[in-house]
Amino acid sequence: MQTYTPPLRDMKFVLTELHDFSRLTTLAAFSEVDADLAETVLEEGGKFTSEVLLPLNVSGDREGCRLENGVVTTPKGFREAYRQFCEGGWSALSAPPEFGGQGLPETIGMMLSEMICATNLSFGLYPGLTGGAMVALRKYGSEELKAQYLPKMISGEWSGSMCLTEAHCGTDLGLLRTKAVPQEDGTYRVSGAKIFISAGEHDLSENIIHLVLARLADAPAGIKGISLFLVPKYLPREDGTPGERNGVLCTGIEHKMGIKASATCQLAFDDAKGWLVGAPHKGMQAMFAMMNAERLGVGIQGLGIAEVSYQSAVAYAKERLQGRSLAGAKYPALPADPIVVHPDVRRMLMTMRVNAEGCRALGAWVAMTLDVAEHGADERQRRDAEDFVALMTPVVKALFTDLGFESANLAVQTYGGHGYIADHEVEQLVRDSRIAMIYEGTNGIQALDLVGRKLPPHMGRNLRGLFHPIAAFIAENKENPLLGEMVAGLERAFGALQLATGQVAERGMKDPEEAGAAATDYLRLIGLVSLAYLWARTVAVAVPKSFAAGPDQAFYSGKIASARFFYDRVLPESASLYLKIKAGKASMMALADDAF
Amino acid sequence: MQTYTPPLRDMKFVLTELHDFSRLTTLAAFSEVDADLAETVLEEGGKFTSEVLLPLNVSGDREGCRLENGVVTTPKGFREAYRQFCEGGWSALSAPPEFGGQGLPETIGMMLSEMICATNLSFGLYPGLTGGAMVALRKYGSEELKAQYLPKMISGEWSGSMCLTEAHCGTDLGLLRTKAVPQEDGTYRVSGAKIFISAGEHDLSENIIHLVLARLADAPAGIKGISLFLVPKYLPREDGTPGERNGVLCTGIEHKMGIKASATCQLAFDDAKGWLVGAPHKGMQAMFAMMNAERLGVGIQGLGIAEVSYQSAVAYAKERLQGRSLAGAKYPALPADPIVVHPDVRRMLMTMRVNAEGCRALGAWVAMTLDVAEHGADERQRRDAEDFVALMTPVVKALFTDLGFESANLAVQTYGGHGYIADHEVEQLVRDSRIAMIYEGTNGIQALDLVGRKLPPHMGRNLRGLFHPIAAFIAENKENPLLGEMVAGLERAFGALQLATGQVAERGMKDPEEAGAAATDYLRLIGLVSLAYLWARTVAVAVPKSFAAGPDQAFYSGKIASARFFYDRVLPESASLYLKIKAGKASMMALADDAF
Repeated sequence: MQTYTPPLRDMKFVLTELHDFSRLTTLAAFSEVDADLAETVLEEGGKFTSEVLLPLNVSGDREGCRLENGVVTTPKGFREAYRQFCEGGWSALSAPPEFGGQGLPETIGMMLSEMICATNLSFGLYPGLTGGAMVALRKYGSEELKAQYLPKMISGEWSGSMCLTEAHCGTDLGLLRTKAVPQEDGTYRVSGAKIFISAGEHDLSENIIHLVLARLADAPAGIKGISLFLVPKYLPREDGTPGERNGVLCTGIEHKMGIKASATCQLAFDDAKGWLVGAPHKGMQAMFAMMNAERLGVGIQGLGIAEVSYQSAVAYAKERLQGRSLAGAKYPALPADPIVVHPDVRRMLMTMRVNAEGCRALGAWVAMTLDVAEHGADERQRRDAEDFVALMTPVVKALFTDLGFESANLAVQTYGGHGYIADHEVEQLVRDSRIAMIYEGTNGIQALDLVGRKLPPHMGRNLRGLFHPIAAFIAENKENPLLGEMVAGLERAFGALQLATGQVAERGMKDPEEAGAAATDYLRLIGLVSLAYLWARTVAVAVPKSFAAGPDQAFYSGKIASARFFYDRVLPESASLYLKIKAGKASMMALADDAF
Repeated sequence: MQTYTPPLRDMKFVLTELHDFSRLTTLAAFSEVDADLAETVLEEGGKFTSEVLLPLNVSGDREGCRLENGVVTTPKGFREAYRQFCEGGWSALSAPPEFGGQGLPETIGMMLSEMICATNLSFGLYPGLTGGAMVALRKYGSEELKAQYLPKMISGEWSGSMCLTEAHCGTDLGLLRTKAVPQEDGTYRVSGAKIFISAGEHDLSENIIHLVLARLADAPAGIKGISLFLVPKYLPREDGTPGERNGVLCTGIEHKMGIKASATCQLAFDDAKGWLVGAPHKGMQAMFAMMNAERLGVGIQGLGIAEVSYQSAVAYAKERLQGRSLAGAKYPALPADPIVVHPDVRRMLMTMRVNAEGCRALGAWVAMTLDVAEHGADERQRRDAEDFVALMTPVVKALFTDLGFESANLAVQTYGGHGYIADHEVEQLVRDSRIAMIYEGTNGIQALDLVGRKLPPHMGRNLRGLFHPIAAFIAENKENPLLGEMVAGLERAFGALQLATGQVAERGMKDPEEAGAAATDYLRLIGLVSLAYLWARTVAVAVPKSFAAGPDQAFYSGKIASARFFYDRVLPESASLYLKIKAGKASMMALADDAF
């Protein structure tokens, strides 16, 4: 059974005890926000997601989406849930107040996202894509476009999509063929075929605003000749209501491994009326703005899946009676012990637990820094924050989705044979979460982004926001008795990361294939060290609080247990990652292409 | 696209160059077998599997099995394929000649199995279960039962099933409730409900012979009170044709994540007539005989999936054009380079490649030893062989299925978004292979079997068959210039395994939970070291042969490249496994059960 209680206590810990939420609330943009407000909002979000979205997750998977005559019907209950989502103001949560948003920090928005993804990944894609489209529109759209579209998108009345991929080009957008032809009135006519368009067509909103990558006739070849266009499904009337149907049609939806309640559409644009977003031929810049937002969002999908996997596995492990503890019966009155007593089951549960808690702590750090990047008091503060977010975006995307998939598989494994049966609902988590390692840039592409685009600029300036606090923490806590050997463990792993960084930079400068060969393992290593740093800080916070008797004592003891497990059983992977990176490209590139 | 060419060249290498197939053919049982015969048989098997089974794999997944009024219909084409399978003599390949089998070594049978599992895992389960049932029958059945049933099962006219699991008991069979009541004529009446019975009901064979675990009225509690019964679907007439319908009914089939063309049945036994197999209350012994055979078989499923995943990914990687090589365009005449040029894609392809080749080499070693255990010339030889097979059975089951699942996921990842779409057929490999980590004892149970049952007896005698040849190889090859640093790498990993073994044994003696906490990582470590040993031997064989020009030069160079990749990029995991094992149980067991 998919089981979910919103992890509000841990969110509060992460926001206000591990990180300093008050740092955000001193910013002008968030002057009306405080930790209590955040807590209230998350509590309500927890109710909505667990009471409204979770019950639709399994039925949505079974029913899937239907396409008839270009019309996509979402599964039963999705329309009503989406209506409640909009009416509850959830679509507007972290949107800018000048367009009708509530202006809460992204940090809160991402925690809401986590709960949405944990309870219904398919549902989450509909508002998720609207969010991505809005990022490009806010950043690069004209004032007219923003005024016309943003309020409706923020209210959720209209939704969004991102139309990038074509059948022959996914990663390599330079190959794309969709054309845009300028018209005398300043608009464009867009024609071409797009595939894999999440939320490209559906029945949840009264209009869909497509952001479409296309090529102008005079465009340079490759990715330097791509422009971004806003193409609405219905052309808005003067009064702001949807008018005439535009030339965009859903010609197919994909049959997928999972996220079956999310419509993945083939869209045909045929002389569709569109408006340029940003400068001509500068579409990749705008594309990356929305893509980076989406990448963080996809990382949060991994986190959501990790949490629901953990909870669903725990529920079963406490209830399923099978065998006796190796140390002798622990529940002698029962016919067998619940499987939670077995070390190997605990190995799985603890792994899922630290995956969820660790990603939550790291995700919140990145989200808070994103808020600073956007609303920071001065340019230097904003720039430093941007650097850190740029560095960590591929890490969050790839690491979290890898760990989310690992957790979903561990949940299935905890259920044993029952996990493989649809009735028990956990195999859906594996199928749903599998896509997160692929879309918005495969995890391999994230790794290349990290080593190829994020490390090199300004002599690795992006790394400072991560390396400096880790180094300072190690220096300050070497003798900290609360942390015991943990600091030495962190120092070892951080040392390996520093060596690996130097190596990747040095070798990669001479031979980009060397950087490519190291990329995936390097991303994992930087991810593990980031988590290790946050786990050590978690212990520094939790140990003193765990001494005080009270209702929270178990919570703090649990954090300490999680941290120790991470250091004992997860962080050691850093040793092998370092060795793999050190091995270089030789054996990876040895075979001729046709020798495979 | 699922792509498959039978890996005959590598099978030949493994049989006759890496291992010594002639060692088998000197045994009396195989006096008429030689390497040429083996090659011919495998070639024909390759044709059957790639031409008959592969085309039914995707359609079988889409159509699935149907249950109507207790009758299970397999997908279109399965009946005809099964008929061809039997007519081709494939069901009889390694079965004993005294009952109509062809008496070929299991080693050849397992290579056929690999090809079956690569091309159609669902199909393979039907004869696979017959094979398991026959093991118990051969070893523990009365002469009458053997004479009556084995010939029909060997010909495939009748198939088999293993009825162990009940809704409340899978791993812990001591809890089972199915009852057997002795009758005056020496038969029994069996009543109870079983679940998860692969091939429990279907339309491929004219009769199904169920081997059922049940409890006699006077049985001791727990697993010491379980007996094994043969319960045919139709009671055989005097003339050997199926007669009266017995009291066993299929009451449901499961809706599963994958292997949808394999019927996973709920069976209700209601006063079904059965015959005791083996002694009363000694059913677990017979169960383990068939279970161990099945465990090796399930490991081979992982190998099959690893191979088809590799080939399917390679085909796509050579054809999909996307981006340019980091080292500059390698195919400038094309609009983009095929993705096989990218280091991170090669990382995935090479991992899949060494997974398949490594498991094939190790699987063949175990299979050949199994043949010796059965047909060895003297008792000492047979006992040593049995020890080794006992040790390696859980390793083959868990390691191969983990690696098979890893490979299936890497294939999907290589396809990117297209891998997530049913049309491209590779997501099926993920769904199908997921079960192999679970059934016939979850991989966690395999690990417990290894540390709890296989290491302790006779002061670790079972280890000798693995440790002695590795130690001897290291000693003999320290200065071998063909191997370079590889021997040092093997020695390091073997050293870690020896330390870990001592630790698991010592700590586990004092505290079984310590062994349990180490189990999964220990199994992986022993598996990696076994593979490392075989890769080093592969290099020792392949290097001299790679000097000679000729059609095989590319093959041997490929083996060397695979071996180097394994040492560079896979074996380093042993470093982190050792650290994890060393960490012990403390952090894994720290939380109280209700603190999860």
